[in-house]
Amino acid sequence: MFDIVVRGGTVVTDGAERVADVGILDGRVAALGERLAGRRELDARGTLVLPGGIDPHVHLAYPQGPARVVSADDWQTGTIAAACGGTTTVIDFVEARADETWMAALAARRAEAEAAAAIDFGLHMTFHRTDPRSLAEVPEVIAAGVPSFKFYMAYDGLRLDDGELLAGFEALAAHGGLALVHAENHDVIRHLVAHHRRAGHTHAAFHPLCHPATGEAEATERALALAAIAGNPVHVVHVSAEAGLAALARARAGGQAATGEVCPQHLVLTDAVYAGADADLFAMAPPLRRDSDREALWAALRDGGLDFVVTDHCPFTRAQRRGQRRTPEFRRTPAGVQPTAPEEPWSATPPSFDRLPGGGAGIETRMALVHHFGVTAGRLSPSRFVEVTSAAAARRFGLYPRKGTLAPWADADVVLFDREREVAISAERLHQNVDHTPFEGLTVRGWPRTVLSRGELLVHDFEWVGSAGRGRFLARGPVAGLA
Amino acid sequence: MFDIVVRGGTVVTDGAERVADVGILDGRVAALGERLAGRRELDARGTLVLPGGIDPHVHLAYPQGPARVVSADDWQTGTIAAACGGTTTVIDFVEARADETWMAALAARRAEAEAAAAIDFGLHMTFHRTDPRSLAEVPEVIAAGVPSFKFYMAYDGLRLDDGELLAGFEALAAHGGLALVHAENHDVIRHLVAHHRRAGHTHAAFHPLCHPATGEAEATERALALAAIAGNPVHVVHVSAEAGLAALARARAGGQAATGEVCPQHLVLTDAVYAGADADLFAMAPPLRRDSDREALWAALRDGGLDFVVTDHCPFTRAQRRGQRRTPEFRRTPAGVQPTAPEEPWSATPPSFDRLPGGGAGIETRMALVHHFGVTAGRLSPSRFVEVTSAAAARRFGLYPRKGTLAPWADADVVLFDREREVAISAERLHQNVDHTPFEGLTVRGWPRTVLSRGELLVHDFEWVGSAGRGRFLARGPVAGLA
Amino acid sequence: MFDIVVRGGTVVTDGAERVADVGILDGRVAALGERLAGRRELDARGTLVLPGGIDPHVHLAYPQGPARVVSADDWQTGTIAAACGGTTTVIDFVEARADETWMAALAARRAEAEAAAAIDFGLHMTFHRTDPRSLAEVPEVIAAGVPSFKFYMAYDGLRLDDGELLAGFEALAAHGGLALVHAENHDVIRHLVAHHRRAGHTHAAFHPLCHPATGEAEATERALALAAIAGNPVHVVHVSAEAGLAALARARAGGQAATGEVCPQHLVLTDAVYAGADADLFAMAPPLRRDSDREALWAALRDGGLDFVVTDHCPFTRAQRRGQRRTPEFRRTPAGVQPTAPEEPWSATPPSFDRLPGGGAGIETRMALVHHFGVTAGRLSPSRFVEVTSAAAARRFGLYPRKGTLAPWADADVVLFDREREVAISAERLHQNVDHTPFEGLTVRGWPRTVLSRGELLVHDFEWVGSAGRGRFLARGPVAGLA
Amino acid sequence: MFDIVVRGGTVVTDGAERVADVGILDGRVAALGERLAGRRELDARGTLVLPGGIDPHVHLAYPQGPARVVSADDWQTGTIAAACGGTTTVIDFVEARADETWMAALAARRAEAEAAAAIDFGLHMTFHRTDPRSLAEVPEVIAAGVPSFKFYMAYDGLRLDDGELLAGFEALAAHGGLALVHAENHDVIRHLVAHHRRAGHTHAAFHPLCHPATGEAEATERALALAAIAGNPVHVVHVSAEAGLAALARARAGGQAATGEVCPQHLVLTDAVYAGADADLFAMAPPLRRDSDREALWAALRDGGLDFVVTDHCPFTRAQRRGQRRTPEFRRTPAGVQPTAPEEPWSATPPSFDRLPGGGAGIETRMALVHHFGVTAGRLSPSRFVEVTSAAAARRFGLYPRKGTLAPWADADVVLFDREREVAISAERLHQNVDHTPFEGLTVRGWPRTVLSRGELLVHDFEWVGSAGRGRFLARGPVAGLA
Repeated sequence: MFDIVVRGGTVVTDGAERVADVGILDGRVAALGERLAGRRELDARGTLVLPGGIDPHVHLAYPQGPARVVSADDWQTGTIAAACGGTTTVIDFVEARADETWMAALAARRAEAEAAAAIDFGLHMTFHRTDPRSLAEVPEVIAAGVPSFKFYMAYDGLRLDDGELLAGFEALAAHGGLALVHAENHDVIRHLVAHHRRAGHTHAAFHPLCHPATGEAEATERALALAAIAGNPVHVVHVSAEAGLAALARARAGGQAATGEVCPQHLVLTDAVYAGADADLFAMAPPLRRDSDREALWAALRDGGLDFVVTDHCPFTRAQRRGQRRTPEFRRTPAGVQPTAPEEPWSATPPSFDRLPGGGAGIETRMALVHHFGVTAGRLSPSRFVEVTSAAAARRFGLYPRKGTLAPWADADVVLFDREREVAISAERLHQNVDHTPFEGLTVRGWPRTVLSRGELLVHDFEWVGSAGRGRFLARGPVAGLA
Repeated sequence: MFDIVVRGGTVVTDGAERVADVGILDGRVAALGERLAGRRELDARGTLVLPGGIDPHVHLAYPQGPARVVSADDWQTGTIAAACGGTTTVIDFVEARADETWMAALAARRAEAEAAAAIDFGLHMTFHRTDPRSLAEVPEVIAAGVPSFKFYMAYDGLRLDDGELLAGFEALAAHGGLALVHAENHDVIRHLVAHHRRAGHTHAAFHPLCHPATGEAEATERALALAAIAGNPVHVVHVSAEAGLAALARARAGGQAATGEVCPQHLVLTDAVYAGADADLFAMAPPLRRDSDREALWAALRDGGLDFVVTDHCPFTRAQRRGQRRTPEFRRTPAGVQPTAPEEPWSATPPSFDRLPGGGAGIETRMALVHHFGVTAGRLSPSRFVEVTSAAAARRFGLYPRKGTLAPWADADVVLFDREREVAISAERLHQNVDHTPFEGLTVRGWPRTVLSRGELLVHDFEWVGSAGRGRFLARGPVAGLA
Repeated sequence: MFDIVVRGGTVVTDGAERVADVGILDGRVAALGERLAGRRELDARGTLVLPGGIDPHVHLAYPQGPARVVSADDWQTGTIAAACGGTTTVIDFVEARADETWMAALAARRAEAEAAAAIDFGLHMTFHRTDPRSLAEVPEVIAAGVPSFKFYMAYDGLRLDDGELLAGFEALAAHGGLALVHAENHDVIRHLVAHHRRAGHTHAAFHPLCHPATGEAEATERALALAAIAGNPVHVVHVSAEAGLAALARARAGGQAATGEVCPQHLVLTDAVYAGADADLFAMAPPLRRDSDREALWAALRDGGLDFVVTDHCPFTRAQRRGQRRTPEFRRTPAGVQPTAPEEPWSATPPSFDRLPGGGAGIETRMALVHHFGVTAGRLSPSRFVEVTSAAAARRFGLYPRKGTLAPWADADVVLFDREREVAISAERLHQNVDHTPFEGLTVRGWPRTVLSRGELLVHDFEWVGSAGRGRFLARGPVAGLA
Repeated sequence: MFDIVVRGGTVVTDGAERVADVGILDGRVAALGERLAGRRELDARGTLVLPGGIDPHVHLAYPQGPARVVSADDWQTGTIAAACGGTTTVIDFVEARADETWMAALAARRAEAEAAAAIDFGLHMTFHRTDPRSLAEVPEVIAAGVPSFKFYMAYDGLRLDDGELLAGFEALAAHGGLALVHAENHDVIRHLVAHHRRAGHTHAAFHPLCHPATGEAEATERALALAAIAGNPVHVVHVSAEAGLAALARARAGGQAATGEVCPQHLVLTDAVYAGADADLFAMAPPLRRDSDREALWAALRDGGLDFVVTDHCPFTRAQRRGQRRTPEFRRTPAGVQPTAPEEPWSATPPSFDRLPGGGAGIETRMALVHHFGVTAGRLSPSRFVEVTSAAAARRFGLYPRKGTLAPWADADVVLFDREREVAISAERLHQNVDHTPFEGLTVRGWPRTVLSRGELLVHDFEWVGSAGRGRFLARGPVAGLA
């Protein structure tokens, strides 16, 4: 007798769709099969039964950039939104302050999350310095369940130069760490920004011109070359351009243990948005690219040239983007939207394109967008959909098969996905703590109906029924090669 | 209460290894999980529990070449050998005689197999003529459960020219058929054979010189181009050379729905054998290649450039190869080796290299060789091992998820694989009906201990305990794209 | 004291432009320099002084295709037109009849040309059969000054299959012959034509659909593979598609001695013409392609991926194309246009797209088109212009440095090219014996003002002043590699 | 009546070899042809008559590296050696001191050269800083005849980071400058050197390990990406590795105006030397590479993937290399070898691999080595030999057709090259001011017999007969694209 049986749905796992029951015991999948009996039953007939989505690239409550504008979703609002969108695991980042060790920052960040998260979470460590003390912490950090490290090749205060990348990569190679690389050429950006600022350009339309695809491709090539020298595995975050893809593909063809991810915004939108009135709402790096890039990304996602889809969720409200506040002016809770305390503007005038907080909202719409533009549009099979929204990320980040599949011993993170549900995307109706989304107005078919995390109901018939603060930290082990 | 529970093994499926029980009911996997109870239990502790192997490229009782020498394993001896080696599904070929329709040949071949096969089997239709009558049979053949068709680009009597390939490919595109292509340039072979025959060369060492990698690569490129024009999916059989791989990789990078397979002999052996005394035993096409080709094949098998491993099993005894008999001089049965009736030689003298029956034995050693040189040698993970020996072929040939995985509703084809068992390969100790193997003398670690087919025990503790004639025909549906 | 001094022009040769005099003695360039004195002086100031153009791919008086419609320019009208366009050397083809040896056909063709040609000419032998008698003639043909052989991979009566290609290529490899290959897949064309004919399609718009770029690319790849096996050098004629270029580029990158040529029609026009009323006038193989192919051809011509520009000149009058006559209904002579004798139609109705005589007019416009769309448009330097219209073809076909440059010992084939002369192209004003050109209505800047052949004035101030029948056969030596 | 006529040699120019006289007047070639008469005649029968060699990458009297050890050949000894080896033009570098403007440094360097050079010379400006003052000098420097600028991506004190490269490249794009790039990844070198130093490694065998081909390839890719963004033409100096070649080839295939050069040491030697006793004499960057790299470089040089051969001549005597002196301990003059004044050691002990002065001798042996291993060995035709030793460099660096060919108006820099002369290379018998060469002991066939510079005899029958201080500065114009 199981605790719960999810009855009669089409389970999508193991590269196949099959009608089966899922038996849940003590928060784990205990059996998959027929003739399973449970104390409680969830009728899944007519739905796809999926392993919970995994979004391994989010930025909750993140004070971003020089102005330290704080991303509008915190661990509570963000993880509730994630769960409502079918995502039951996120991986966010630890970014130590100058006066903090990595281990201390990790402890603090973990505590912050544990207090508020509605779903399970992992953490990546931001590798933004290479002093001996920090390098010495690498094995400790890995031993603490954080074997993946983010490297920025651009952005003052975060970026490492090639020598620092090598020092970091070697430390990872020695201890089983994985490098996540934000691959853009720092100097190209700085140079082009300076050029446009000198010319008096401030409009957001100049943002994409300062982040050319050539700079992304070059940095990708370089990161992969340095990793080949150091001998560590690499994951390229938010690949956005065909030229960047080509660099990744060459390295893989040469046998390098490299993976890549893509964001829904790069799959669904193009740089046409920068000609619009709300161009500043699309400030993100890499920027939205050409339609041919978009098509190349879909082809790679279908054929395996890209491994999975993440959001890089990092929302800012209109007021935040336009300099009027550092923190959001409202807070959505399960009980409703609450205003927050008044605050001084951080920018006297609307900020220039290079000072805009960069990022976008997406944690709640990821599964539905990939389903709609992928599965419904005929680009992806349901099995590939599960692979790119859950299984592949679980594999790459050491969560598989605890997460990313529905099989005995897996955590009972289960999504009953209603393929027929039509939803017109609107910030107002979502749970994300922000007043716009890049996908505003798009109508998608398919949305998560019911969501369980470790056997607990978080969403039932499209309604949030869960609680925050129950999410657990996922300690992950050292990383081996690709194989 | 299940019929059988395979208890406590490490189940390798769904890209993961996990300790779980497999519950079997009515010949199918009914549940995977813990707390399963069965009338009979098989102790699987310490073994890998795998979905039964699938070998989709075998030639049993096949009268080969102009001399119509019959391959030495028939449906009984061959499928018993397969099962003893951990393979529970084979796909063989139907080759209609000139006076026979494809449907009639299919019925006859199916009946021949059903009478003798110890394991389940599918059939491919050999597409060796393009007369209107045959083209009209294509939808019938597909409807009869045979959606895959073999095209030879070389060999008199079998090969189609480009126009015929196109006609065949278009028929497949129209009805959901898949083309399997033997890609060698016919005229290159003929030309080089003629050249060497004129020079008086007859030794088997001249065989590989007449089947150059350039000819394989050219034909691969051409087959893919013609399929791109016709719009049908293609599978390239027995890829053997780095140059052929490159042609396949280019087509895939361009988004074509193409797959490729490789044989253990091309993964394990090289053309060094042709310098040896038994060169004639290695007459096969494509021939064994250079060491660098071998390494490229492993890399592609690891990284996904090749999809699965098949045997092209087509054994001939020494006496058969050397012209003394058309049929084998003995027959291995579960009861022992029996001599067969005397027979006239088919060749007055040892045949020239171009008249040798071509092919090799391997149906029984496939799983162990891929495990040993793949998993034990660190080239493949256990999950990738399952993928390339079972799951991927099941997917490509429309058997998945009935075959190729261990999950609810799958046929209970189960292998308990003992990773520690050491076996010195020797034709004498194998069940294949032939007096030598290409792998004679190699010692491998890892061998199937116990094998079930649809819940029936065929092999128990390395001993054959099954019966022949129980195998069923696997009717497969039309083929869609790759997805 | 030289016979003639061409005084004060900008000599373009040796990759440079320099003001210099050209001293001519006994029909050859005797000196290049200053202070040269001659009995006669030609004032070249303000013009480019170029080596005479070389068009190594023309079809004069060629009975083409199954209907044997004869191309409208004969050796007299065609070579006069060539000279008026700045071309002082052509290479045409010998095509033996079934009842004729190659040597006999060569003698006849040479005599036909010597009687009428206004400029020097070479010949290629068409390698359309591989009987032992013909193969035995290969060294004789080469010794007779014809070391280059044309192979058709398509077209009934001409095409060789792969085995025949190999036999031919080997004969060339043995004796120092060069293969010119028309690379299209015969069966692809036949198959697609049959398909469209069955569908009742007859309009010329269906012509390009039956000659897809994939078929050209495949055949190019195949020809290069076969040549790599045989070991002979290859030249790919009329490359028209980006995919074909890629195959050629891969072979060259691998070190193969392969070259490629391109026609002005593929550089200047696109398949848009097939939507027009005169689609049938653009029947040629390969057909006109997409704009992106066109751009790729220019890039390759600029960067060295393609070697030179030829015309494949093979004109037919409207009446010839539309089935009303086999031979042209008029003949242009220096004295004016003469009607020819009446004649029965060869086709009762306008012929279907697959029965149209294939080819186009271009022998007179080649230099001006490449200059205008190349040099004037900024794609080619004057030096590269000389390379692709004269020097490179001379090198590839064994004429250099007798032809293709202006340097001591070179034949005094000299063009004074007026870069400012504007000409609106119109069949009426050209010397070609045909009533339309593919380039009708285009206006180009730059045209040959004065043309000398072996020191004799053929064109003076845009007027024909020469005589026919003075052209000499150019015996060429065996071919070595590329170096 | 010309001043000199070089009579009856085989002139190699314009892609051909032809017997012709060269008429020289006022130091220039006035005519090429027959029947030329001169006041003085040089009998060239039996020799190749070549345009004088051009070595556009030499370092004479160059205080190198942190220890400022001065390269052993000065403008006099180095240019005499060059001339004796058939090179009549060199291009060296200007490297401004911190307290010096570029224009001042240029004036000083030019004066230094004019006082001593035996042959004509050009200069490249080293672009080692990007302060506004220097950037503002770019058009002035170009106007002064120096349109080519050297960028180091590695080496403290010289290297620019990516932002600085971009600033420099943009300045060149604006004014018609060409970037010469030393492409190695600075941080990779530093990182690996630090690693080996920490491990106590000091032997020269560790030098090549710190300059991996991956670092060269990465930097090449990056330089080309940055140039694509800035829009300036690029020339990659001393390409040494197959991986670097591949990066260059990709850029060229994409239409970028990029060229590359190679050094004889990378064509003739391999990293096997680092296992020998004199490993420290082969300290140079990039280091000698693997045999497969060497073969790839030859293939590229033959097929056009590389443009020309330079020496990077930068010799140091044994004593200099081993820390005993900064300047050479002797000086070769036409009158004999003179000792120089005693001097303090710059290094107390033999310097570690990373402190060795880097570079090698080669200015005198370049033509002979390329001839022997290129032409004699069948890799290059005589015409390609002239292209890669003279014409192509002249073209790329704006000297053509004044230098790099033998044609009217060209400077009468002429080499009578004796293809049969055998020379065993030995430092003792050369004119280079150094006591060893990397090619010591190799015997080559072919050596310059007689050398003229602007019509003046410098070498006659293998004997130096010229004078120093006669060489002139070659002012070059702004650079356009590749065309």
